[in-house]
Amino acid sequence: MDRIAYVNGTFVPVGEAKVSILDRGFLFADGIYEVTAVLDGRLIDSASHLARLKRSLNEIALPLPRTLAEIEEIERELVKRNGLLSGLIYMEVTRGADVGRDFAFPSQSVPPTIVMFTSAKDLLETQGARNGIKVITVPDLRWARRDIKSVGLLAQVLAKQAAAEAGAGEAWMVEDGIVTEGASSSAFILTQDDVIVTRPNSISILPGCTRAAVAALAKERGLRLEERPFSLVEACEAKEAFATAASVFVQAVVAIDGKPIGTGKVGPVAARLRELYIEFAKATAV
Amino acid sequence: MDRIAYVNGTFVPVGEAKVSILDRGFLFADGIYEVTAVLDGRLIDSASHLARLKRSLNEIALPLPRTLAEIEEIERELVKRNGLLSGLIYMEVTRGADVGRDFAFPSQSVPPTIVMFTSAKDLLETQGARNGIKVITVPDLRWARRDIKSVGLLAQVLAKQAAAEAGAGEAWMVEDGIVTEGASSSAFILTQDDVIVTRPNSISILPGCTRAAVAALAKERGLRLEERPFSLVEACEAKEAFATAASVFVQAVVAIDGKPIGTGKVGPVAARLRELYIEFAKATAV
Repeated sequence: MDRIAYVNGTFVPVGEAKVSILDRGFLFADGIYEVTAVLDGRLIDSASHLARLKRSLNEIALPLPRTLAEIEEIERELVKRNGLLSGLIYMEVTRGADVGRDFAFPSQSVPPTIVMFTSAKDLLETQGARNGIKVITVPDLRWARRDIKSVGLLAQVLAKQAAAEAGAGEAWMVEDGIVTEGASSSAFILTQDDVIVTRPNSISILPGCTRAAVAALAKERGLRLEERPFSLVEACEAKEAFATAASVFVQAVVAIDGKPIGTGKVGPVAARLRELYIEFAKATAV
Repeated sequence: MDRIAYVNGTFVPVGEAKVSILDRGFLFADGIYEVTAVLDGRLIDSASHLARLKRSLNEIALPLPRTLAEIEEIERELVKRNGLLSGLIYMEVTRGADVGRDFAFPSQSVPPTIVMFTSAKDLLETQGARNGIKVITVPDLRWARRDIKSVGLLAQVLAKQAAAEAGAGEAWMVEDGIVTEGASSSAFILTQDDVIVTRPNSISILPGCTRAAVAALAKERGLRLEERPFSLVEACEAKEAFATAASVFVQAVVAIDGKPIGTGKVGPVAARLRELYIEFAKATAV
């Protein structure tokens, strides 16, 4: 049976879920997206993702097409219609389809486009959780406003493809010797003296929802955490490294560019933070 | 009557011209585009646009979905079906729609998406041609591969919107005090000692088709032309400034950030180059 998607007010089979070729998401990457995890049929860290959606839309002057409560209700309905127990919800809001193509914003009579679809996926018992992932590094080619979760993702596509071709699970993007973040995840290291380090939020990185939750959990548990940039050299000398994202929660990084990190196996801090995050996720799911 | 668009092998009314919400153009800006002018029902500078399409696709490892000759044939058919005498053809090629969303390239069994549509527009007797345009300047926020004509255009959308709000016709993007190019056009100046200056091609700018043709025409006519970066300060002190693009040919820039350039009116060199380009365009149209 075809999955059910949501397109501008209606629930339709994914095979029939379409947008105009004039949609500004398709013509200009003039849109914002979010990916939210689902466990036990409930939305993980939903308020954080919705707040970021609102923030990103605001940064590109695109009005929120529904209230956040309505959007969450649509997500829950989509989960229900798909009988989704574990997986992801993808949501995209674009500046809609005008009658032609003009870079400047269309008139306010052009409604934004909002689409959602789900993918069923085991998020808990994954190979990445068991064995960790290898990452490669690539130059960070992205634009200057990486804090906006826009669908302009070609740099990330090329980075992830390079990772896939190298047999790696993620690409860490590097700029002036400093790790910015992963192509679709936030980057953390654990130094040899047991300090968890992750880059502070700025226009240079996406304000990761899972990143924020994991950082808060680490602090709550009394782990030492520093928000500061770290270099690729420092990462390679770290005791542990890990990535966070809605789609992977916390995932140990066991090698960077073919060089083992720490023991080259999933480390105890990454494993512990993964447990803590999943516990938090389940306890706060809606 | 609704215009006719082309979507993956079929000609359909624009109102029915749609792509899957899973199309990678919509999800990732994983696509390339071209805009070609039409005069007297014929394609302007077509070989140059097709060569750039092929180059951009190659840079992102996306195979050409049809031969260039076939693509040109579809463009001509679309012009015919729309009775288009003067205007633009927009073409976009994306990495297609897979069954889900994964950053890395889909399997080769996923066909690329190719869409085209036209817009009727007088390209000769325009207000911009008569009076020139004002430009504003904005920081260049774009990614590092500006030579690839990808649909990741959000920075340009925001730049053009800022221009529209300021009553200007274009935004020139500036980086470290140097003009890179316009949001949808190439930037030229004429120095006080009559040298035409435009930035050389590199990964920092789009290799403009109209830019290349205008530069060649200028050289042919014995005008002095230097390909080198120029600063915003130099642009503001220029005798003339102008922009080139498939959609505007050559358009005088009469003010930058509210400051008149030269006489503050369309200058003779910009006007002459516009004439030369239109003559070339008509003579080589197919």
